Amino acid sequence: MFESAELGHEVSKSKYEREVPALREALLEAQYEVLDRRSSATLILIGGVDGAGKGETVNVLNEWLDPRHVHTHALGVPTEDERARPAHWRFWRSLPPRGKVGIYFGSWYTQPIVQRVFRQTSEAELDQAVERIVELERMLADERVTLVKIWFHLSKAQQKKRLEALSRDKKTRWRVTEKDWEHFALYDRFRKISERVLRHTSSGHAPWHVVEGLDARYRSLTAGGLVLSAMRAQIERDTAAANAKKAAAAKVEAAKPETAKVEPSSTAAKGRKGKGAPHEPGLLPETTNLFKALDLKSRVDKDDYEKRLEELQGRLNLLTRHKKFPKIGVVGVFEGVDAAGKGGAIRRVTQSLDARVYRIHPIAAPTEEERVQPYLWRFWRHVPQHGSIAIFDRSWYGRVLVERVERFCRDEDWQRAFGEINAFEESLVEHGLVVVKIWMHVDPAEQLKRFEERQATGFKRFKITEEDWRNREKWPAYEVAACQMFDRTSTEIAPWKIVAANDKRGARLTVLETLCDRIAAALDRA
Amino acid sequence: MFESAELGHEVSKSKYEREVPALREALLEAQYEVLDRRSSATLILIGGVDGAGKGETVNVLNEWLDPRHVHTHALGVPTEDERARPAHWRFWRSLPPRGKVGIYFGSWYTQPIVQRVFRQTSEAELDQAVERIVELERMLADERVTLVKIWFHLSKAQQKKRLEALSRDKKTRWRVTEKDWEHFALYDRFRKISERVLRHTSSGHAPWHVVEGLDARYRSLTAGGLVLSAMRAQIERDTAAANAKKAAAAKVEAAKPETAKVEPSSTAAKGRKGKGAPHEPGLLPETTNLFKALDLKSRVDKDDYEKRLEELQGRLNLLTRHKKFPKIGVVGVFEGVDAAGKGGAIRRVTQSLDARVYRIHPIAAPTEEERVQPYLWRFWRHVPQHGSIAIFDRSWYGRVLVERVERFCRDEDWQRAFGEINAFEESLVEHGLVVVKIWMHVDPAEQLKRFEERQATGFKRFKITEEDWRNREKWPAYEVAACQMFDRTSTEIAPWKIVAANDKRGARLTVLETLCDRIAAALDRA
Repeated sequence: MFESAELGHEVSKSKYEREVPALREALLEAQYEVLDRRSSATLILIGGVDGAGKGETVNVLNEWLDPRHVHTHALGVPTEDERARPAHWRFWRSLPPRGKVGIYFGSWYTQPIVQRVFRQTSEAELDQAVERIVELERMLADERVTLVKIWFHLSKAQQKKRLEALSRDKKTRWRVTEKDWEHFALYDRFRKISERVLRHTSSGHAPWHVVEGLDARYRSLTAGGLVLSAMRAQIERDTAAANAKKAAAAKVEAAKPETAKVEPSSTAAKGRKGKGAPHEPGLLPETTNLFKALDLKSRVDKDDYEKRLEELQGRLNLLTRHKKFPKIGVVGVFEGVDAAGKGGAIRRVTQSLDARVYRIHPIAAPTEEERVQPYLWRFWRHVPQHGSIAIFDRSWYGRVLVERVERFCRDEDWQRAFGEINAFEESLVEHGLVVVKIWMHVDPAEQLKRFEERQATGFKRFKITEEDWRNREKWPAYEVAACQMFDRTSTEIAPWKIVAANDKRGARLTVLETLCDRIAAALDRA
Repeated sequence: MFESAELGHEVSKSKYEREVPALREALLEAQYEVLDRRSSATLILIGGVDGAGKGETVNVLNEWLDPRHVHTHALGVPTEDERARPAHWRFWRSLPPRGKVGIYFGSWYTQPIVQRVFRQTSEAELDQAVERIVELERMLADERVTLVKIWFHLSKAQQKKRLEALSRDKKTRWRVTEKDWEHFALYDRFRKISERVLRHTSSGHAPWHVVEGLDARYRSLTAGGLVLSAMRAQIERDTAAANAKKAAAAKVEAAKPETAKVEPSSTAAKGRKGKGAPHEPGLLPETTNLFKALDLKSRVDKDDYEKRLEELQGRLNLLTRHKKFPKIGVVGVFEGVDAAGKGGAIRRVTQSLDARVYRIHPIAAPTEEERVQPYLWRFWRHVPQHGSIAIFDRSWYGRVLVERVERFCRDEDWQRAFGEINAFEESLVEHGLVVVKIWMHVDPAEQLKRFEERQATGFKRFKITEEDWRNREKWPAYEVAACQMFDRTSTEIAPWKIVAANDKRGARLTVLETLCDRIAAALDRA
């Protein structure tokens, strides 16, 4: 991949001066167009050989673009806060919101390549890291982040010459460090490994551009041109998408009277189940309906409950004071049918914990800042550090539950979410976090009973809304969505626990027991 | 203050069991009411003697309240990220948004008291820290944060007994550390100093409550009761404020036809100046109008400009590579008349900098997450760490400029902002940051010329909006606001620099020179 970037490309001063003004104006125009639409973010990754002009290019881009809407992140050695979180956390927290431009100087490519060059990781580990990157970039592209990946290259002879030249000049000497020479000694190895990584991560939606770094004018013009064409392509895609959406809406509008007349399958569904929902995605074969297998009848009596509760809460408390607990951490996910008792179960968990150890994140509609970021961003920001517990009261699974059923997102969005969620949870688990996913289930009759109870009890009334009644109407659709979710996201490393919750006592004990067992197993491994 | 908390208060088990259910229900009800209104936040500060039940109380409050809407922060040893920012940054970033409850276990009181006890600071320094706290709490109260400050106390004999008891029991031994005994040896000193601090920081809007920590039941009931009454009082204040607002609005509505008829002063103003604005706060005596003294006529010629620009940019670049630069940092504030050339000046600054060193924060309308926080929160989140530069393109001064003139906030809000801003900037400066405040000024004729130019030039058109034309109408009102702002916030430690900007070249040179001089002076002191 690098040969064509060793030809000694140069741009004359006169050509440069002729071309720059037009390029700058076009860049600004594209930047403002993207800013104005706020439908996509631009993320520029800068990588490559030391001394090939990476830093200079970052400065040039900041000069040519309107720097007020550019966020440059030098992602060097991770800070204490960053080390306490999964490796990708630092990138998530610095993602540019839609409309803006982000520049990463050092990116998710840096550590995997450097570690492999210095033989701190095996080839298999490098391949694994590469696979993670491919997944991440696929997801970012789907979430309307335009990736511009630029690799600055120098041949071995060029690099040597440049480092020597920089060292000779008093004004630039500070820029050449010991480390640069160390890296130079490893040039061939570095070249081979980065070539391999680039080859595996150059995709249609996020291609690599290798740019010869020798001549500053050539380098700057080329980099500026790459950013410009990426932005323009994104604008075109956004326009096409907006037009397609408009056309589809017009079509639906035009077709309305007819569809209102026929609708046979949905009517049939209604007849069979008695409460079919308009958006019901289809009925579930009995075999894959996991809820059928749930024993919702068994009951725990009060004395047993109180004894077991105290035991389990004591056990959980001790587990969080285990000497190895600071090496792990817990992500608890609570999902389930409305009124299944998530809140009550969470309270039984937190009661036994030191309030400084846990944090609960109730997930409601995303805020303005969250809406201009990729879907998972708002969960990444709450990923706990080692030694602590994050409890999500509803979670990223909203994408394949409420957002799917209520059509808050497009079909392709929730369909790709399964893979994205699995990748997300994998990165949590690899960081030593225990991911405990609880689904609390009651049957429709029990739910009705609880809804009516809530409506009758003064201080519980806040817990029941019109929306709960509407969701209830869509029970079959939610059932289909939930069962497919279990199927697709109950993994070895982060399995779902489906809890029969008609009996509140039994459900709470099961939740506590599941948490304890999973944490204990993680401590054993730590 | 502590005597009444050494009487051996106790609550019997039967009384406790009788009172707790009602208290919990009332607490939940108040919590949901506050959550529902989202008009104020509740912040509970927990302090006091070791072993007096601070941690237990935090846990009890989390159990009694709905823990999903409680954020507990254990503010122990500051992290790396926190140490790189001013001392109060960590508290700002953990403030609860309106509607929610925050609990600080360890607060802004901890460090000042502990440092004084261990003689790391002088009495004068303690007094200074106390003054800062008083200012901060005054501001929080004004920003609708309900402070509940609870101090858990034990007499010397009680503390000794309790520490011994905890040490004896295997289950609680882990909770007594070496440090606790060290602190105990300093009991008398600790008591004296905290008594002094509490006395000086117990105010009407944020009183201290000293609670005897000996008996768990007494302690919990008392703490719960204090939180409940603080929330209820806040609800009452909020209701009163909402009613007053409604009444005022009704009154204005009723009075409308009359006021439309008279309005003598504003008409007179219009007559005199030719472009009086409806909200004009009054005319400015010639003597305090700093703009009159500006020489807007002088011009720098092109050759001189280019030479000086290069020199100054080189100087600025070198300053940021000074070996002591990692000990300081820069906060640049750019304010001024519309079209005065803020953007262009900022670009001349950043052109000379490594893109990894600076970040620009263009300040527009606050986001949803920012609107439920105290006014200064959105600026605190962008305070730079040591070794870096934050440039604010418009800033916290919006409060006393656009928000004042356009009546986006109440008079009392912008009036108190002067003091709050000075305190904010003081805490930046004390952390070693250089605060450089630039006001760029052009006269009305020059502004008109630039507006018309912008409207005519294709890619500059985005820069001119209807709002700019409307603001222009209010020139005199903005002039009054700006001049009062200089008067109230041009301090020794963070002076304003008013830049004559009819000549763009001269203005850019002045901006660069001001920045360089201020940074150089800070490096000398560092």
